[in-house]
Amino acid sequence: MKMIENVEIIEVSPRDGIQNDPVLLSTEAKLALIGRARAAGLRSFEVTSFVNPKRVPQMADADAVVAGLPRDDGRYIGLTLNRRGYDRAVAAGLRDANFVVVASDTFNQRNQGVPTQRSIADFAEIRGQAASGLALGCTIGAAFGCPFEGEVPLARLMEVVEAVMAHAPDELSLADTIGVATPRDVTERVGAVRAAFPDVPLRLHLHNTRNTGIANAWAGLEAGVRRFDASLGGVGGCPFAPRATGNIATEDLVYMLDRAGIPTGVDLDAAIETAAWLEAQLGRTLPGMVMKAGGFPAGAA
Amino acid sequence: MKMIENVEIIEVSPRDGIQNDPVLLSTEAKLALIGRARAAGLRSFEVTSFVNPKRVPQMADADAVVAGLPRDDGRYIGLTLNRRGYDRAVAAGLRDANFVVVASDTFNQRNQGVPTQRSIADFAEIRGQAASGLALGCTIGAAFGCPFEGEVPLARLMEVVEAVMAHAPDELSLADTIGVATPRDVTERVGAVRAAFPDVPLRLHLHNTRNTGIANAWAGLEAGVRRFDASLGGVGGCPFAPRATGNIATEDLVYMLDRAGIPTGVDLDAAIETAAWLEAQLGRTLPGMVMKAGGFPAGAA
Repeated sequence: MKMIENVEIIEVSPRDGIQNDPVLLSTEAKLALIGRARAAGLRSFEVTSFVNPKRVPQMADADAVVAGLPRDDGRYIGLTLNRRGYDRAVAAGLRDANFVVVASDTFNQRNQGVPTQRSIADFAEIRGQAASGLALGCTIGAAFGCPFEGEVPLARLMEVVEAVMAHAPDELSLADTIGVATPRDVTERVGAVRAAFPDVPLRLHLHNTRNTGIANAWAGLEAGVRRFDASLGGVGGCPFAPRATGNIATEDLVYMLDRAGIPTGVDLDAAIETAAWLEAQLGRTLPGMVMKAGGFPAGAA
Repeated sequence: MKMIENVEIIEVSPRDGIQNDPVLLSTEAKLALIGRARAAGLRSFEVTSFVNPKRVPQMADADAVVAGLPRDDGRYIGLTLNRRGYDRAVAAGLRDANFVVVASDTFNQRNQGVPTQRSIADFAEIRGQAASGLALGCTIGAAFGCPFEGEVPLARLMEVVEAVMAHAPDELSLADTIGVATPRDVTERVGAVRAAFPDVPLRLHLHNTRNTGIANAWAGLEAGVRRFDASLGGVGGCPFAPRATGNIATEDLVYMLDRAGIPTGVDLDAAIETAAWLEAQLGRTLPGMVMKAGGFPAGAA
């Protein structure tokens, strides 16, 4: 693998990380999380989602979270599933939004109430009308498998990717929403997308549900991905994906990248402290492992 | 990666998996574990270790475990740390033994009471006198880092590997005893060993302490390793390695390999059932993740 200049870690704990958590965090706690993560060196965040607060009560304060964000050069992304959500994100003042189109119809229907084609059409409409200067990316959900349909064939994924790419997202994300991917799949699917669309910035959203998350991140890195979603402590899950567990843990990813000499800008010890702080806020043990084991032993003995 | 014909999984739950467990398993339970694992398709086992029962009470019944093993074509390995242990393994009737030499002196001293050079000399002596027909492999402990000394430089590892290889082990194992390795390290170190000794069968012993275990297995596979230690449910740890947690989980490894079309001979569902059985025996939740999440969704919906 050639030298890697930089990897962007998108901290998704304020969104995917906590959206399904039984502990409702206050807006202040969410902003404190973002502030602490910034102090640890994280610069990109999925800060909230603009969805139905009845379905996802944890995200009901989306506007307040955006209003409280630091005024700096950080990247603050809002997740949206439809036109209404996108309009709310822009109205709240976000300049970076992430739309979701799920590769399988059944999951798209359950996640956002319409079939995949309709979400693609929504994305096209938003893209066509979005003001210049506002970044708009698109995540392809269930890109590696669907909890309802099982296999998502590569050909089906590529159909959806091509339909989305026709509307020129600023960033394309492949999401292993339910944590079924393995390195073989990442190599195959990232390779296919990069072959078809070599210029689009690719982002990978991984869950560690079957212990393959960190392996998949490494495979993604080898396949050319430079943007990875992760959540401090590995907190997370999807309320509409059965058995989906946490995102890959930010500090576990940083540990692996640090040891490979790949810059992330994140301080491992500070990330571990922030994960521990989040664990205390949520009142339960989080799945991240480096926060328990610590970094590489100093060897003082 | 070219087509992989077969991967050998060495089930180490009867040895590394339980050696540090507070629950003392009966000889019958250990033999039941091996029997169930065999029924799930596992054919290679590290069945016990011949060590000081005062230090590792869980292994005090080593002779009885060996006496109760099935009489079949399975591979049954006994772990030994010195001449006395090796003689006991042979006397018990094992035809396959695994010696340990730790790459760092401090850890070798703590683990087996002598410096690394002395363990290498012991290995040479045993190798010189071993009856023909008895397989004797050697594990290089702390091959990726030491809990006491910290970094184990590649040059130091290669010195130890070369000294061991001078005595022609039937198999060479690199052990990430404390779970610090990352894919970068595996690629580097397996690559160096294979470049120097292309013909020795290489085995990789990984712990998932920092969530990199499965990633490291994949990196090992890509680097040419075809033999991997794993333990059902990810049970395990080393009593003399601070903070070391479990081995990589057999069923998590099988899931990744299954999805890549790499044959292991193991039935995933049966492996999950056996991990659940072991969990019940030990009375606590094991760290394996596929045993909780299940395999790839069938997509009946």
